[in-house]
Amino acid sequence: MPITTEVIANPKAGRIRRVAELTERKGRKRAGRFLVEGPQSVRELLTWYPDVVQDLYVEAIGTEPDAPFLTDTVAQMAGKAMQAGAYVHKVTHAVMRHMSSDSQGVLAVADMRGFLDAAGSVESLDDDAMVAAFWQVRDPGNAGTVIRSADAAGCAAVMFVDECVDIFNPKVIRSTAGSLFHLPVLAMGTDEFFAWCDDHGLAVYAADVYGTDARLPEPLTDVLSEPRTTAGAKAVLFGNEARGLTSEVLNRTDRIVSIPIYGKAESLNLGTSAAVMLLSLAMSSHVERM
Amino acid sequence: MPITTEVIANPKAGRIRRVAELTERKGRKRAGRFLVEGPQSVRELLTWYPDVVQDLYVEAIGTEPDAPFLTDTVAQMAGKAMQAGAYVHKVTHAVMRHMSSDSQGVLAVADMRGFLDAAGSVESLDDDAMVAAFWQVRDPGNAGTVIRSADAAGCAAVMFVDECVDIFNPKVIRSTAGSLFHLPVLAMGTDEFFAWCDDHGLAVYAADVYGTDARLPEPLTDVLSEPRTTAGAKAVLFGNEARGLTSEVLNRTDRIVSIPIYGKAESLNLGTSAAVMLLSLAMSSHVERM
Repeated sequence: MPITTEVIANPKAGRIRRVAELTERKGRKRAGRFLVEGPQSVRELLTWYPDVVQDLYVEAIGTEPDAPFLTDTVAQMAGKAMQAGAYVHKVTHAVMRHMSSDSQGVLAVADMRGFLDAAGSVESLDDDAMVAAFWQVRDPGNAGTVIRSADAAGCAAVMFVDECVDIFNPKVIRSTAGSLFHLPVLAMGTDEFFAWCDDHGLAVYAADVYGTDARLPEPLTDVLSEPRTTAGAKAVLFGNEARGLTSEVLNRTDRIVSIPIYGKAESLNLGTSAAVMLLSLAMSSHVERM
Repeated sequence: MPITTEVIANPKAGRIRRVAELTERKGRKRAGRFLVEGPQSVRELLTWYPDVVQDLYVEAIGTEPDAPFLTDTVAQMAGKAMQAGAYVHKVTHAVMRHMSSDSQGVLAVADMRGFLDAAGSVESLDDDAMVAAFWQVRDPGNAGTVIRSADAAGCAAVMFVDECVDIFNPKVIRSTAGSLFHLPVLAMGTDEFFAWCDDHGLAVYAADVYGTDARLPEPLTDVLSEPRTTAGAKAVLFGNEARGLTSEVLNRTDRIVSIPIYGKAESLNLGTSAAVMLLSLAMSSHVERM
């Protein structure tokens, strides 16, 4: 599509108001669309899912029809979006601010159904595949960070289990730094998760400091050195930020694993735990395979 | 000291205004005092440095002289502080809000000089000691998170090298979740840091994805399996959130180590990198020692 040369300067324009509504879950549900903010996330979206991008909003300097883009990066995004067949709209700084507080000059609107259809399924898993699963994760920043760590660890998928934050929350997407577009991220109930792992032949490892009355956690150091850990397909399940995993959930897992703490810290937060657990399992499995 | 029974209800009281000024660096410098907010951090402060606590502000329900504390945890902190010889002041919710947005009912004022004298030096290091060092870390949340990870990894100390965020920034302290009181946290210049490592017989490992033109990073997986890594005393140096480490700094380090990335993520953020690098080095060294 050709770029519209006119610069949108009115924050109250119907189109702008409708984009701003996508910051709320209700607005996203009604429109079936979601927002992707900032050059890094937008670039990854355009690279991996060009067909789901409907509109790209780019910040221009001034309001003349030939007003230049805010930065070269923004101009590149505009070019990529046009190539992908999306509508590109130039907007003023004030209009951009009205839609997003963290766009760095570029903002995409994408089709939710189209993205889920293209991204949201896991066909088959390797024998040593790892899936990262998060039970009742509520904080958007945490959710984004753990998706990024799962991506870095080469996970085959991310599961958000039970009541979790909406993955289309703009804060989640921003915190993934593009990783949302690198691997399937699925949402499912607790029963469905355990059935899915069973169907796909995944052992479920719970990341938990306390374990249950009947079962103490195994230290990660022990788990890393075992051939069955490094070889087998597995899902690693992390609990809620404040409450961890319930005994009921822990009882349904195959192993309970804790990260050893060598100093005086009581615990690690969710983002840190997930990074350490997922990356060290990945490193250990890749070293064994060499 | 006995607790004052009167509940402070005026947010404009001179004492309250002076506490609120400690959220700013200028205010802390002038007063020589710093703020510690929330039950977890206050408990760790009272446990490890009871002598530096000067005042404890606790939230009461109501303004009667016998007004109850906000929670049992708050009451416990009040008891601990009295035992330590600190002044305990009851305040209303509005007064507490005026001093801190994240106190959960309890706030301590501590003596900066006293704390630095008691905490700020490293006498001697074990043969396999690890020190975590951060060059030009600027974000308070990041700084707190990495101190917590260094604590969990059993580091002997944390160094903030060159221009870093002030460790007495309340956001830093809050993000450490008490770890600031578990290990020495020192601030020093770049030259001073390398001289210090030399004096203490520490090899300096740089955590860096790119390396220099002359030296590519070694993958962490290789480094972890080497006896000289697991046995020797070392400092692990991390760069600025956005710019990493300069070539000039990298050239002064003994090794450059990168965390392998198995998926499509471009990089890990500082908090994640520090957690993975420090905890995996710690796990590897503890396993070797067994």
